[in-house]
Amino acid sequence: VATLLIAPNDASLVFRGRNRSMSAKPYKVLITHPEVPQSGLDLLSEHCELIQVQSLPPSRSELLEKIKGVDGVLWGGHAPLNAEALDAAGPQLKCISTMSAGIDYVDVEEMKRRKIPLGHTPTVLDTAVADLAVGLLIAAGRRFHEARRKIDSDNWENYHLNWLLGQDVRDSVVGFFGFGGIGQAIAKRLSGFDIDQVLYTTRRRIDKETEKELNAKKVDFDELLAKSDFVVIASPLTPATQGIFNATAFNKMKRTAVLVNIARGKIVNQNDLYDALKSNRIFAAGIDVMDPEPLPPTDKLLTLDNVVVLPHIGSATTRTRSDMSTIAAHNVLRGLAGERMLSPA
Amino acid sequence: VATLLIAPNDASLVFRGRNRSMSAKPYKVLITHPEVPQSGLDLLSEHCELIQVQSLPPSRSELLEKIKGVDGVLWGGHAPLNAEALDAAGPQLKCISTMSAGIDYVDVEEMKRRKIPLGHTPTVLDTAVADLAVGLLIAAGRRFHEARRKIDSDNWENYHLNWLLGQDVRDSVVGFFGFGGIGQAIAKRLSGFDIDQVLYTTRRRIDKETEKELNAKKVDFDELLAKSDFVVIASPLTPATQGIFNATAFNKMKRTAVLVNIARGKIVNQNDLYDALKSNRIFAAGIDVMDPEPLPPTDKLLTLDNVVVLPHIGSATTRTRSDMSTIAAHNVLRGLAGERMLSPA
Repeated sequence: VATLLIAPNDASLVFRGRNRSMSAKPYKVLITHPEVPQSGLDLLSEHCELIQVQSLPPSRSELLEKIKGVDGVLWGGHAPLNAEALDAAGPQLKCISTMSAGIDYVDVEEMKRRKIPLGHTPTVLDTAVADLAVGLLIAAGRRFHEARRKIDSDNWENYHLNWLLGQDVRDSVVGFFGFGGIGQAIAKRLSGFDIDQVLYTTRRRIDKETEKELNAKKVDFDELLAKSDFVVIASPLTPATQGIFNATAFNKMKRTAVLVNIARGKIVNQNDLYDALKSNRIFAAGIDVMDPEPLPPTDKLLTLDNVVVLPHIGSATTRTRSDMSTIAAHNVLRGLAGERMLSPA
Repeated sequence: VATLLIAPNDASLVFRGRNRSMSAKPYKVLITHPEVPQSGLDLLSEHCELIQVQSLPPSRSELLEKIKGVDGVLWGGHAPLNAEALDAAGPQLKCISTMSAGIDYVDVEEMKRRKIPLGHTPTVLDTAVADLAVGLLIAAGRRFHEARRKIDSDNWENYHLNWLLGQDVRDSVVGFFGFGGIGQAIAKRLSGFDIDQVLYTTRRRIDKETEKELNAKKVDFDELLAKSDFVVIASPLTPATQGIFNATAFNKMKRTAVLVNIARGKIVNQNDLYDALKSNRIFAAGIDVMDPEPLPPTDKLLTLDNVVVLPHIGSATTRTRSDMSTIAAHNVLRGLAGERMLSPA
């Protein structure tokens, strides 16, 4: 648990030598969202004057106005963090931390060019996202959405013995596209399900000990697609992964395969996914991410029986959000002190 | 896997000494449902003349007509197995096996009184039901149904940082009401989720080795209710368990608790469950069983955001159904031969 890795008075250590009883606080920090959990605000307010965006949804103009002259930013939410915001802040800006794992809404190159340290909050949400991924894998494989529709439409046909038959998890091959902290946390959760084998496709092989522990084997993308009963997308969105799950990929998968995406919507060509599900080229999908988000309620994907769709709530647990706020605050405090962040991006 | 526990030619061993090349088969067996998977029929037809109910849903009158004079019955589906059916069969009837774990639709006393051996198919569906239970636990705890409704009604409010926050599985206490094969299979599946403790309430304590393996502790019902973050009902329906989850029980549970029921609907007082969910006395429920089944689509339970409802599909996987058919056929073959059934009820 991330919070346990941090000594309780770590934040004050960052500022050792400063007089904590001084009423004037040395730094100004902007909180870009009114709902950032209190845990992080409490940490920051010991040493910093806090300014917070109050509008909800957070307005861009309020953010651009309030960011002027601040030393650090705790960037809550997924608004674009780009040159516009950095220009509005001004040259005194020392550091920013997001409150998310993925940072596809950040212009990382621009941050680097300006030499502004960037933090994010990756590992702390691994378990919440991994739980959700297992839930999606089972819900999609066992047809939860279609089943509920049958009840709601008065088509409960349990006199059939072969009604709503789904996919077994036992003895299955589970393939991970991307196998970092979240992917490995999912594989760990599946270790009690008597699965046959974990496969994974990544650029670099993971360490042998973890491979052994998770019964995992690195394979190329085509082998992953051909052999997996469940395919879990757990990679970052990059130019190399964007749209890689397209018709060509779906045509290499088993007809009984279940796709799970808890990473980023744009890794999947959503039109091709619709076709693959509609034609039963693959069995089902469970997705927490899509393109665009929010998905319009008229989107054709929502007409399908064999897809379980969630509105990007992978990290949505009280404890995880609180931990994310804490880590982001530590990142900002360390950035202000010129130290290496707890989790630099 | 149950099918691996049976020697391939076990069925023929039952009939050793008989001339298998004889075209006249020694026994007549009724299959009470047209969709019993082929695996069981293949086994039975080696030695028995098969008669099968063809109507769908299976009509009672066809069943009562065709059961006359048979030696054995493979009872597919959940139609009442009672004195009426036994009277219709006649005194030559030697044995019956259901194709289910629960046998609450069987008049067991009447079977005993007539000394007709009864088989069922319990352990073979443990893993399919356990997978589904974990899916329900996560889906309910992480608000899958409410989340989908938000998408469908165009209320995707992901600009909130505290939107749709759910319950973490890590560090939770999972309490089982009933802790036989299915309950233990669920606990085994949760072993990779970093849970804190498994509690269980049963009449008899399970063996110490299994307790240790599953980090499980026997407690009384009140302690189970008070301490569990997730309460999983996995007991048979008996006079002692009927309606035991009522308002009194819900009032002893945590406000953040999630209830999962994959056993039988009548163990829960459904009206009290509705009230507990509606008033947020408990956080959520995930149920595969209810009362009555089918549940009318106008039932008030279906209006709630915080319940995930499935139409009794716990054992609904292709492989499980096929295995159930195989085991039921073995039960019948052994019953006909006067031997102990593979899984006597």
